[in-house]
Order: sequence, then structure tokens, then C-alpha cells
Amino acid sequence: MKIALCQINPTVGAINQNKKIILETYNRAIDLEADVIVFPELAIIGYPPQDLLLRDRFIINAQNALNEIAQKSTIPVILGNTLIEDNKLYNCAFICENGEIVSHYKKRLLPTYDVFDEDRYFAAGNKHCIVELAIDGKNTKIGLQICEDLWDKNYSCDLAKELKESGAEIIINISASPYRVDKLLDRCELIQTKAKDNSIPYIYCNLVGAQDELIFDGQSLAYNENGQLIAQGKSFEEEIVMVDLSLNKPMNLKVLQREEKIYNALVLGIKDYFKKTNHSEAVIGLSGGIDSSLTASIAVDALGKENVHGVSMPSKFSSQHSKDDAKLLSENLGVDYRTISIESIVSSFEQSLKASYNGSESGVAEENIQARARGSIIMALSNKFNWLVLSTGNKTELAMGYCTLYGDMNGGLAVISDLSKTDVYALSKWVNKNAGFERIPLSSIEKPPSAELRPEQVDPFDYDVVSPLVSSLIDDEKSPSELIKEGVDPELVKDISNRIRINEYKRRQAAPGLKVTSKAFGMGRRVPIINQYDELKHD
Amino acid sequence: MKIALCQINPTVGAINQNKKIILETYNRAIDLEADVIVFPELAIIGYPPQDLLLRDRFIINAQNALNEIAQKSTIPVILGNTLIEDNKLYNCAFICENGEIVSHYKKRLLPTYDVFDEDRYFAAGNKHCIVELAIDGKNTKIGLQICEDLWDKNYSCDLAKELKESGAEIIINISASPYRVDKLLDRCELIQTKAKDNSIPYIYCNLVGAQDELIFDGQSLAYNENGQLIAQGKSFEEEIVMVDLSLNKPMNLKVLQREEKIYNALVLGIKDYFKKTNHSEAVIGLSGGIDSSLTASIAVDALGKENVHGVSMPSKFSSQHSKDDAKLLSENLGVDYRTISIESIVSSFEQSLKASYNGSESGVAEENIQARARGSIIMALSNKFNWLVLSTGNKTELAMGYCTLYGDMNGGLAVISDLSKTDVYALSKWVNKNAGFERIPLSSIEKPPSAELRPEQVDPFDYDVVSPLVSSLIDDEKSPSELIKEGVDPELVKDISNRIRINEYKRRQAAPGLKVTSKAFGMGRRVPIINQYDELKHD
Repeated sequence: MKIALCQINPTVGAINQNKKIILETYNRAIDLEADVIVFPELAIIGYPPQDLLLRDRFIINAQNALNEIAQKSTIPVILGNTLIEDNKLYNCAFICENGEIVSHYKKRLLPTYDVFDEDRYFAAGNKHCIVELAIDGKNTKIGLQICEDLWDKNYSCDLAKELKESGAEIIINISASPYRVDKLLDRCELIQTKAKDNSIPYIYCNLVGAQDELIFDGQSLAYNENGQLIAQGKSFEEEIVMVDLSLNKPMNLKVLQREEKIYNALVLGIKDYFKKTNHSEAVIGLSGGIDSSLTASIAVDALGKENVHGVSMPSKFSSQHSKDDAKLLSENLGVDYRTISIESIVSSFEQSLKASYNGSESGVAEENIQARARGSIIMALSNKFNWLVLSTGNKTELAMGYCTLYGDMNGGLAVISDLSKTDVYALSKWVNKNAGFERIPLSSIEKPPSAELRPEQVDPFDYDVVSPLVSSLIDDEKSPSELIKEGVDPELVKDISNRIRINEYKRRQAAPGLKVTSKAFGMGRRVPIINQYDELKHD
Repeated sequence: MKIALCQINPTVGAINQNKKIILETYNRAIDLEADVIVFPELAIIGYPPQDLLLRDRFIINAQNALNEIAQKSTIPVILGNTLIEDNKLYNCAFICENGEIVSHYKKRLLPTYDVFDEDRYFAAGNKHCIVELAIDGKNTKIGLQICEDLWDKNYSCDLAKELKESGAEIIINISASPYRVDKLLDRCELIQTKAKDNSIPYIYCNLVGAQDELIFDGQSLAYNENGQLIAQGKSFEEEIVMVDLSLNKPMNLKVLQREEKIYNALVLGIKDYFKKTNHSEAVIGLSGGIDSSLTASIAVDALGKENVHGVSMPSKFSSQHSKDDAKLLSENLGVDYRTISIESIVSSFEQSLKASYNGSESGVAEENIQARARGSIIMALSNKFNWLVLSTGNKTELAMGYCTLYGDMNGGLAVISDLSKTDVYALSKWVNKNAGFERIPLSSIEKPPSAELRPEQVDPFDYDVVSPLVSSLIDDEKSPSELIKEGVDPELVKDISNRIRINEYKRRQAAPGLKVTSKAFGMGRRVPIINQYDELKHD
């Protein structure tokens, strides 16, 4: 028995286009002699469709597309779509065969945490579904699951066991599971356990592609009844993964190095954001620093060097080495590069503000003027040439509020906003190792980080200390009290957690950022702006 | 029997401060000879606390505050707080009396739609709660509800009936129900029906105050067993509303005029945003147009004229009448006013971009440079003087994308972003009528709207047509197909709905805006940026 796991890359809302992708892939899988063909969760409408699900016509159009796919079906196909029943909306797996929808399964576990909002849209199913398919002259009972149904330990139930006990001979799970570092290993461990404990093959088909902040990594999986891996789909690429249950040949899990995985995730994140919003060219402000250098490197690998434009925007505080590093980077990457000085613009602002500022001492206001002059120039290029601006801030900066709203935060997509400064260094070093030369100039990596907004300025943090602490507070969701208990300097913890709290207003207006950790700023982290909860000030 | 409905204004996260407010108000209600004292939903932690609820210490601190209130209690007090039981979090009403927590009720209906995310945080209770309190030498059975429990028709259950049938003699509902136009009438109708149908007094205590995008209006209510109103709290103000059930004297509902209600809501929205984020002064770009004029008027009424700064930022395209109108407005309001020309700044930008622009025709890019020069100036004043920028865009503009990201969209709070252009006119006229003179210059109201970013420019929409259509699509959530079926020009519907869709990326980076309609842009409307669903292009 051959199962084709079609890890496709649909676009949210593009029902007709997604239908075509599904039908074409279905036919290719038939050519590959598949007996059952599987597509991911909500394959027809894309994931997550968010409030599009609240529109009646949207649901009807998706239903029509499903009907057309069913009509054109010959051998069995399993795919995700919505269903309305008794005025309730369900997230379903449909089984179509020989021109008809033969059965459907309603997702039972609806994730409503982090980036997931399924309770907002869906009612939960309350029973399992086992379909009997005649394959190779023999009837096989297939138990169906959708994504979260696998992660049932959080819900005190065991849905795989229930399927096995009800007679299922294979479990097929259709997913739209977003990427985060090490999620593959979590999935494998879970699936392996389910397969082994219940002596049942467990087949897992996952979505590929990026949608706003989320990146779906594919990496479909198949485990046999002994809990051995027998198939693994590519990461971050569309593929038809053929699972031959009669061969049943164990293999080793292929796990990329951490830096490579994250890098590839971000490449796909950029690529899909551009393709799916009808953009082709990007513009990036190049400061000669490590953040913009890494962002540009990722952009080139996503869009091609001919589609990336670098802009250096020096002021009187810009060092020669910064200008040299930016130029060298653009040569290494082979991208269009230009220099637009902000000096005269900043002077005009200062002149115009002179009366209001009335001789006050120069400070953050003056520094922000420079960042905003750059932000306006890069947007001027964006507006004129339809280049999409990629912003270059990292997660540590965003947490601390060490960034200028309407300045360096400007952009349509924040590429590395979920990377700590530590990760920015690690990925940059990996880029150079992988390229076999200093694609990112070594001095960009080695010099002390500086915003160069005033003479002799360097970033006011020891990133070796601050970056991991921010990761503990945000990614690991540790509390300030825990960190202090672990021995971290209370004053430092207080300063960092306070900065994180009071800078929520900046992040609320930040560009959407690509999520690669367990907890990113953005849709999965909903912290009020008006927030007077300071754990460490509390009685 | 006298019930005190304490419609207080807590701050999200400020547990100690909220505890103090509750204890002070409790003592004042005792002085007023109350027999039972009632506070709103989640009174100790504020509403909505969002992801603060995921922090263990936060829940513990709130529990400690509740225990302290209980210890200090003499006569019965009912108030909202969280409860952890079997590793699940509940949204509860606690009853404390004579130093102890005597009972609690777990909220049964958890709203998870629009701005509400309660399923993300809470488990639902599954049984009613009736407490017996000895008042005036007689035992009275009080049935408890929390907010959404009243709106049970959406959940096919009847919780008031259940309470009555189980012996309740009074129903008390503690709420945190955000304001929208006409919500008072919806609440009244619902409560009246519940009271009358079940022949039971229904007492409703609501929160006051603003929290980010949401404004809570108070307006606590009491209906007797005949469905007659016997008490109504003030709108948008803290108050102890005394309900004397023995007097039981029917009264008429006081309903303010639509414009006055919305205006007062926005005043409170500004006032609380400033107070609760520790700001006192605002700065507003005054163009002489109606949007900035209305925003300034609201700001003055919220913060006092001495705390509002107006800035006119003319370019070579600014008309004399605009400059005159802005100046006249600032005189009418009595606010600090300054003029900072953007001409030389815009010239510097144009000069610096000349090589890149290479003689291309002037267009949107050039217009946006002006908006961004203004945006940077106003932020420069904000950074220097710690003035919070109020942005002035209306809902119709935001829907159509007729606004400049990082330009006129700059600001910490968007005051009128949930007002259609039609409502902007209506409120401005009301302001003048209410003031008894042309507080907002008549020419600002009467002249054709223009961004004045090029010669002879006027806004490219007929707002009389476009504004109501946008309201139909957004506020009333009508579909484009419906509007066409109703006879609206298909090309116009297509153009508007397409603009709404493709400008999602701008709104994603907009300042939080005060919600006054049934559907505002912001936390309650979650539409993807990558969104290829165009209903009218479909099939």
C-alpha cells in the first residue's frame, strides 16, 4: 500500500488556485502509483485563514471547490476543509473517492493558545472516524486525525489509542503545524510513541509555506507499527512524499543543524511573503552592522541578488568602517547598492525644530531624527519603485525597545525579529562557513555593535548577558522572580523586564515578524499596552 | 435591601492599586448603608488582562489581594477575580463576608469572538451558584452571573431561568462589558426580558474605564421583577449606584444623543490611556481639516487645554485657509500652538533622492515624503518633551488605505479611527452645538476634504457615498455580493472591498484605536495580510 503525502504550499484565501494545486498534485501522485493521496489541514483555503472563516461566501466557495475535487477523484484522497452543520463550523478531514465525498472527520482538539485561535471559529467534533478503503484487493481501516489531535496529552485524552481500540489499522494525521526550532524532534517523539504504544503505523502530512508571521516546514513523517521512521519529507519545500507500507524500511531521521534550519525557514518566510503579496523586489538599509548584513544575505537567497537593493544612509556619525563594511557586503552579495546621505536632511530637521527645542541638550530625540530620516528615505524608494522594505531589528533589541518607531522599525516584513542577538551571531557565522568565504564581512561580526547615532556610541548592553536573559523571559516564559532565584542580578532582571513591559507600544506597531521560536512577539503574544503589572514591584 | 453597584475604574495589572480602590469604595458603600456591595468582573486585575493571565505569579498575587479584601470584609461583597482549580483557570465571582470567602461562582459562558479571547485563558464553569445572604433579618437567595452569562441566547441555554427555577430570588451579574454605540439599549432589552420572563429582579454591575482599544461605559442597571428599570448608573464615570429593592420605584432610562455618547466615550478613552500609561500631555498635528480639529477638541476635554499642543506643519501646497483654520481652532480651544514648516525638509529629501528618482514623474512617493516629514517632526516633539502623539485618521480613510504609514498614521493612540467620515462630521457639528459657538471653525467642516499634498488636490472619494459603504462592509459585516444585490454599483463595491483587503498591512502597524462601533479595526478584527480571497473575483 502506497500513501502519497502531498506537502503543498497553498495561499490563504486563494481557493481556486489552491484547488488547482491540489488537483495537479493529485494527478501527479496517481502517476506515482499512490493508493491513497493525502493533503494537509485546510488545504483548500490555507492556514490560518483567521476571520475569513466568519464570511459565509468564503465557506460556500471552499465547499464548492471541495465538491469539484471530489467529482474529479478516482482513487481515495484525504484533505482538509471546513464544514457547516447545524449552524456550526467544523475543521474537517474529507475523504473523497470515485467522484464522491465518502466520509468526513471533525477535528476534536482545537488549539487556542499562542498563535492559535481555533475556538474563535470552530466547534469541536466529539467522535472518532475510521474509514475503510479497498486497497490492493484488501479493506484497510484508516483512522483520521487533524493536527492538534496528535498533541492530546495537553487535553487528558488518548485519541490514537481510541482509534486503535476501535479497529483502525493505520492513523493518518493531516496537519498545518508551524515551524519552531526543534519542533521536528517534538513531533517525532510524539508520533513514535503513539505508533509504538498502539502498534499502529502513524502517517503525518504537514503543510509547507509561509503565511504572515508563520512558517510551515513540511517534513511530513511516517512511522511503522514498531515506532520506526519509514519516510520523511523535505523541510521548507513542496514534495510528494511516497510512503510504501509494504516495504516498511526503517531509516534515520535527517536533522539539519540549528542555524541551517532557522536560516532556511527565514528564506521561505521572505520568499512566500513576496510571492503571496505580489511583490518581487526588496530594499534594505545597510548599516554595515551584523543585523542588516544577515537580513540581506537571507533576502538574496530568497529573492535572488537581482531583486535585492541595498541602501547605505550615512550621517556625520557613521564611521568609515561601517560604510566600507556595507559596501563590501553588497559586493559579496552582488546586489544593487547606493549611498544616500542623511546629513542635509537631518540638518533641515534640526533647523526647523530649533525654535521648539530652544537650546535643550541633544539626546534621544535628536538620535531618533536620524533613524526616522533613514526610515523615510527607504520608504521613499519603496513607494517609488514598489520595493518592499525588509526591516532588520532582532528580538533582543525589540524586547528592550532599543529601536526607533517609524525609523529603523519601518518595513513590510521583519525578517530576524524572532532571532536573539546570540542567534544573529550564530547564523552569520554559519552563513560564512556555508558560503566558504566571508560573505558577511568579518568586521561586521567582530566589531562592537553600535547604532552610530552619536559620537563614540556603542549599544548600551552586554549582549552576551542580555540576549540570553531576554530569551529566558520571552521564549522560555520564565518569570523575573525565577531568574532572580536562579541567581541573576536582581537589578538587571528588573531593568530588562521593565523595559520589555514599557515597550509593548512599539512592538504593537512593528512589522509582522517571522516566527521561529516557541514564543515570538506578534500574534501569539498578547500583552496589553496599558499594563501596570510589575512582578518585582509587587508587594 | 440596599445593593451598592460599585462601577469602579481599575487598571490592568495594578493589583495593589485596584485592591485599594476596592477597599475604599467598599467602605464608602458601607457608609451609604448598603446591605450587599458589588464590584465588576475581574475587578482586582482589570479587564482584559490578556496574556498576563498566563503568568503564575500574577494569579497568585491577585489571589492574595482577594484574601486581603475578604479578611477586611464585614457585610457581603461580591467581586470578580480568577481561581485556579485542578490546574485550570476560572473567571469567577467571589462572595466575601465577615472576614471570609464564603462562596464562588465560575463563569459558564466564555466569549471568544470579536475582541474577546476567554477560551484562550479560562475553563468554563458548569453549574450555577446561588448564595443565601442574611439581610434585614431575612435570608435572600442571590443567583450569580458574570457578563456573558447574560447573553445566553447565542449558546442555546437560559441561565436566568435556571437560576430562578433553582430558587434564586435576585440575579446579580458582574460585568466588564465594553462600550459600542447602542449597546446600552441591547443590554436593557436583554435584562428587562430576563427579569420579566422569570419574575426576578436582575441587577447588573459594569466596569468603567478604558484599556487600550476598549472603553467600558459603566451604566450599571437594575430591573425589578416586573421588568421595570429601578436604577441606572452614570455613563463613563465611576459611581456607587445604590439600588433600593424595598423602594422599587420605576424610572425612565436616560439615553444620551448618539453624538454625545460617542464623544464622551472618546474623552474617557484618551483620559485613561494617558493616566494609565503615565502621560499627561498630548501633541496633535493640526491641518485645518475636520479630523484633526475634532481630535483636538476631544483631547482638550480629556486632558485640559494646558496639556494639549497643536502643531501646524505647512508645505508649499498648504492653502492659506488651512493655516488660518488651524490657528483659529487652537485659539478657540486655548491650546499651545506652533507652526513648523516642512518646506526645507521636503526639499532636502527631494535633493537627496534626486539621483535615485532620476527625473521620474512626481506621484505618491513624493506626497508621502511630506506626510513622513510631518510624522517625524511630531515624533521629534514627542521624544523631546514626552508629549504623546494623538493620530487623527478616521475609519473610512484607514479602510481605504488613504493614509501614510510612518507619516500621518504616527501616534500612540488613534482617537477617531473607529469613526466613519460621516460620524466625524456629525460629532463636529455636535461639538459646535454643544459649545454654543463655532469651536471647530465652520470652514473646516464645510470645505472639501483635502490632504493638500499636491496643487488643487481634493480627497478622491465622495465620502457621502464611500463612508456608508465602508460602514456596511466593516461595521455591519455585509459581504460585497450582498451590497451588489442591494443595488450598489458593482465597480464601486469592487474598488472599495479590494482597497480594504490590500491595505491590511498598513492597519497592522497602526496605533491602537478607540473602539466605539460593533466592529473596529484592531484586536477584534483578525484578517490576514497575505489574503488572496477576493469574493468578487471568485470563479
